[in-house]
Amino acid sequence: MAVDTTFGSDNHSGVHPAVLEAIAAANRGPAVAYGLDGHTEATLEKFRAHFGKSVDVYMVFNGTGANVISISTLARSFQAVICSEHAHINADECGAPESATGCKLLTVHAADGKLTPEMIARHLQGRLDQHRVQPALVSITQASELGTVYSAGEVKAIAEFCHGHDLFLHMDGARLCNAAAALGLGLGAISGDLGVDILSFGGTKNGLLMGEAVVSFRPELSRDTIFIRKQKMQLASKMRFIAAQFSAFFTDDLWLENARHANRMAQLLAEKVKSIPAVKIVQPVQANAVFASLPRAARDKLLEKYFFYTWDEEKCEVRWMCSFNTTEKQVGDFAAAIAASCK
Amino acid sequence: MAVDTTFGSDNHSGVHPAVLEAIAAANRGPAVAYGLDGHTEATLEKFRAHFGKSVDVYMVFNGTGANVISISTLARSFQAVICSEHAHINADECGAPESATGCKLLTVHAADGKLTPEMIARHLQGRLDQHRVQPALVSITQASELGTVYSAGEVKAIAEFCHGHDLFLHMDGARLCNAAAALGLGLGAISGDLGVDILSFGGTKNGLLMGEAVVSFRPELSRDTIFIRKQKMQLASKMRFIAAQFSAFFTDDLWLENARHANRMAQLLAEKVKSIPAVKIVQPVQANAVFASLPRAARDKLLEKYFFYTWDEEKCEVRWMCSFNTTEKQVGDFAAAIAASCK
Amino acid sequence: MAVDTTFGSDNHSGVHPAVLEAIAAANRGPAVAYGLDGHTEATLEKFRAHFGKSVDVYMVFNGTGANVISISTLARSFQAVICSEHAHINADECGAPESATGCKLLTVHAADGKLTPEMIARHLQGRLDQHRVQPALVSITQASELGTVYSAGEVKAIAEFCHGHDLFLHMDGARLCNAAAALGLGLGAISGDLGVDILSFGGTKNGLLMGEAVVSFRPELSRDTIFIRKQKMQLASKMRFIAAQFSAFFTDDLWLENARHANRMAQLLAEKVKSIPAVKIVQPVQANAVFASLPRAARDKLLEKYFFYTWDEEKCEVRWMCSFNTTEKQVGDFAAAIAASCK
Amino acid sequence: MAVDTTFGSDNHSGVHPAVLEAIAAANRGPAVAYGLDGHTEATLEKFRAHFGKSVDVYMVFNGTGANVISISTLARSFQAVICSEHAHINADECGAPESATGCKLLTVHAADGKLTPEMIARHLQGRLDQHRVQPALVSITQASELGTVYSAGEVKAIAEFCHGHDLFLHMDGARLCNAAAALGLGLGAISGDLGVDILSFGGTKNGLLMGEAVVSFRPELSRDTIFIRKQKMQLASKMRFIAAQFSAFFTDDLWLENARHANRMAQLLAEKVKSIPAVKIVQPVQANAVFASLPRAARDKLLEKYFFYTWDEEKCEVRWMCSFNTTEKQVGDFAAAIAASCK
Repeated sequence: MAVDTTFGSDNHSGVHPAVLEAIAAANRGPAVAYGLDGHTEATLEKFRAHFGKSVDVYMVFNGTGANVISISTLARSFQAVICSEHAHINADECGAPESATGCKLLTVHAADGKLTPEMIARHLQGRLDQHRVQPALVSITQASELGTVYSAGEVKAIAEFCHGHDLFLHMDGARLCNAAAALGLGLGAISGDLGVDILSFGGTKNGLLMGEAVVSFRPELSRDTIFIRKQKMQLASKMRFIAAQFSAFFTDDLWLENARHANRMAQLLAEKVKSIPAVKIVQPVQANAVFASLPRAARDKLLEKYFFYTWDEEKCEVRWMCSFNTTEKQVGDFAAAIAASCK
Repeated sequence: MAVDTTFGSDNHSGVHPAVLEAIAAANRGPAVAYGLDGHTEATLEKFRAHFGKSVDVYMVFNGTGANVISISTLARSFQAVICSEHAHINADECGAPESATGCKLLTVHAADGKLTPEMIARHLQGRLDQHRVQPALVSITQASELGTVYSAGEVKAIAEFCHGHDLFLHMDGARLCNAAAALGLGLGAISGDLGVDILSFGGTKNGLLMGEAVVSFRPELSRDTIFIRKQKMQLASKMRFIAAQFSAFFTDDLWLENARHANRMAQLLAEKVKSIPAVKIVQPVQANAVFASLPRAARDKLLEKYFFYTWDEEKCEVRWMCSFNTTEKQVGDFAAAIAASCK
Repeated sequence: MAVDTTFGSDNHSGVHPAVLEAIAAANRGPAVAYGLDGHTEATLEKFRAHFGKSVDVYMVFNGTGANVISISTLARSFQAVICSEHAHINADECGAPESATGCKLLTVHAADGKLTPEMIARHLQGRLDQHRVQPALVSITQASELGTVYSAGEVKAIAEFCHGHDLFLHMDGARLCNAAAALGLGLGAISGDLGVDILSFGGTKNGLLMGEAVVSFRPELSRDTIFIRKQKMQLASKMRFIAAQFSAFFTDDLWLENARHANRMAQLLAEKVKSIPAVKIVQPVQANAVFASLPRAARDKLLEKYFFYTWDEEKCEVRWMCSFNTTEKQVGDFAAAIAASCK
Repeated sequence: MAVDTTFGSDNHSGVHPAVLEAIAAANRGPAVAYGLDGHTEATLEKFRAHFGKSVDVYMVFNGTGANVISISTLARSFQAVICSEHAHINADECGAPESATGCKLLTVHAADGKLTPEMIARHLQGRLDQHRVQPALVSITQASELGTVYSAGEVKAIAEFCHGHDLFLHMDGARLCNAAAALGLGLGAISGDLGVDILSFGGTKNGLLMGEAVVSFRPELSRDTIFIRKQKMQLASKMRFIAAQFSAFFTDDLWLENARHANRMAQLLAEKVKSIPAVKIVQPVQANAVFASLPRAARDKLLEKYFFYTWDEEKCEVRWMCSFNTTEKQVGDFAAAIAASCK
């Protein structure tokens, strides 16, 4: 029997059918490459409808690319990015941020994956000291890598702290849709409207084939980002096919429907495993991930049938991820398998 | 009337229907991300069938990424790449090679876009001089940026020169399929078999939605390339959808059929314009491009109806590019429009 | 009254007279630049006498340069350096290591500034995971930034751990002389002989005008370091004047005499302040630094007359540094001033 | 008999005695490191006396460092530097500019080493094209690498062209003193006063032990250069000893006296060899270098007794360099040896 990979990652899910249809529909006749086509222009308009009339948007291939371009737009190599040690940019990008921007990451320990102004403040002591990198921006991830979601107030407080301390605020929104669905707010309402300066906006984990975007809320700071995108190897030649995906994403609130569903499946899974005494949910389930601890033997047994990641080997904490096309039946079967493995 | 973009670039063409179908077919159930899925493994097997059993293959997003990863695999920052000044890595990648690898490009003027051992030799004088970058590899483009094609013998001679002078040979094969079709030889027969050490293999310009690959013929030198791909922001999460494209590419010789067609359309166009006295074909038409000069007024008039690039403004030399889905009728209409503009 | 800067840093001390004399003596007639002169060759011979016949030595301008060249020699950008969070490379080089090598630093908290194999092991979990930087080397500082000294056994244990786990060992020996003096062992005996692979050897803090060196104990790994030194902007044109300094350093054990004296002055200072109840020595005094805590008011009062650095503002821990030309009288006066400030 | 290295390079000369005396004089008591000392402040005042009250000055170790810091101050990685192919930054810095700044160098062929606005203009065609690096600055070398000197009018014309085309102007003034002496103008009069935005000011080739400086005439653009200097590994800990050298340099016009002498020796040498029929002077002798061609056999014979560099092996063009302490007798002997070798 093959291993079930459904709960391994929201990257394991495929493409939403409406997205595939949009790609096929865009495949008519020739179109100028590199973003100078009608599909791209129309999609940028949709971005502006969500994020604000003046935003500057750059569609790219992947999240690491979006993060690197965001940082490179706002910081120079002698500057630094303050982030959580769990941040994707710190833990999961094979050093791309440092290597591609020269910037140092200054990390803090955030037990639930969420920064606070107090944590950020600790890294501001070296200001003006020529021996120290100079913090230029703060990067927060919404929803966080630990499945938690910043409230609007929390983001606003961080943005105010940042702007009061000569720092920009970057949001890694690989799962911004899940956060928006969780908060019941719009995409712009939980990013630019709260003071975020630049956003890595994710589509791939929420039903696209492949597509992310850098959304700059400070176009006066991103007028060279078009060159940065190219130099950082994130400019697609047949751009219309990324544009078509985002166009479908923004049609009939597909992004929201997908994210809501993924979140609901995570809630369902959490509810079902709550009743298993050996399983302990270790992070608030606020987006589409369930972080839980379980006995090592149970974990190992479960891994025979299901693929998922262990987040903390020592504590045997694991991550179970739901996505836009996870079904209630899959959740039910998985919960039953968890229960069985714990017996 | 809208401007016709057919002859602007082979990137202006869409996706071959068989490629779209393969993407759709791969969209069933979950699959582990980042290349650890069955589609990827099956596609790598197809790569090995074409390029050799021991090759090491890394599928990536775009050609700039493939080139940067190739260079980074074989050179360190104090080393250099010898290439034509027309090389895509030198002229069209916004400095990505230098910025992402630290290496300097040492360029030579090659009137037809093709290097020779003599040209390469000129850059070997600084060897062992600590003030000079140290040439580590030569990069040639097949088919070249000027639409010309190296013969097998020419590539072999360059490879032998390189290996006799402690240089690796990189081939930018963004249009390798067109070269193979032109030469009537296989993909491996015109790359690894001739001594190429690492190859950027292109799919996007020949009918894929988006997909290129780094093919290393020296796996002992590319054992860390998996990390380089990630750090250089070229690792797709839903890799199966790039794999599916290449799978279709290699099925029923789609790559060859597409490339042959594009080449034939370029030949047809060349034949048709040959009879126009004001038009002069300025490069041998060996792949899918026609480089020609025409009177400036004619060029300007033609640009009102057709989108294409001027390669040399001073000489009024332009590039007309054919692709896998250019039709004979389009070629006929375009040739007629050229003739009309020259009257 | 001017502020006394004697105890601020061993960089505040001047140049030993014998070093100045050696510079003047080297200033006769012309000499080929960039290290191809007789002074340099003779000095390299002296290095080999201390560090081993086969070492590869590159004299450079400063410690940051030596560290960057060392890392760049042994690691590529997708790799990482494991070090203490107090390490100079992490805290005091304005991000030069990340910016100039692309490598990420993976830090551990070491209360006394000294790493252990256990601490290093924590960063080895991401091995072979393409999303993670790959640890390539460990960097330890001897004497450490906190004035402590690794025993020979401790370094050996780390080296063995490193070599058993496919890691190189770099030693930042900006104060290696002080460590050697403290341990009563030779320079090579506490570096290469214990398994150190590459060393940043410091002269400036111990009586030179300006001079550090990269000492590679693995010449087969550093055959390109000559190019790295140039590219990293650390090649002196009039090299003979750095060579002359090191020549004096190695004559009549000047390096040892200077280091011993500085260490003794730190011991003397520690002894004197021990009797002041409000002052607490917070790190073992093993080299030429005294780390102590004292009441904030006392610290502030003392700063009116003496320049020194606060290491931990929260705990009011400060660093007092002795150097080769600190006098007993200066120590006595300073201790008295400390006592007075605490009243 | 040892080979005479006098005419090999102005880097082969030693240190002017007044400079050594100044170093010794600065070696009294402790001084705060990293430029926060009285010597440094006093020397910066002298820089301002020469270059203007508002200039921002950063003393550094070497010319490559000064050039990299200058470029890094004014350009980002997607931008480019336009320079001569003979420029030191292009030919003799082992790729440091590209590697350390990410910028591409766009070169032009300038037969006498001097750029013109026309040459610069050729590289401005890719402006606003996202595939092309964006020229941000022009770098000219004064005196040039070929021993020629830009007139004040020529520099002014370039500066005006630059500023009219959104380009900064960098001057590599490794031999600015020689140019000033040749032109009979002040240091500021031939740099900032003519529109130069940032200057690499050289001391080492003109009698210092080791010392260069970045002089920014646009302090509003260089407010972060203090961090760049540190990150680019060019911050000296015992800065007072670089400061002391420049202080001596600016005392009693030592810089001018040294440069004038070197230039005069080059003139003398040129006059003497003019009468040798087999020798042809191939560049105007305007600073302290004589570029000449001579028969290959004569060159080889001369190399048995004298060390000097061949600039163009094919044409057998060589460079003979004079310095502040070249004597008339040395010139006479050398000219006689040249004549003898040509017989």
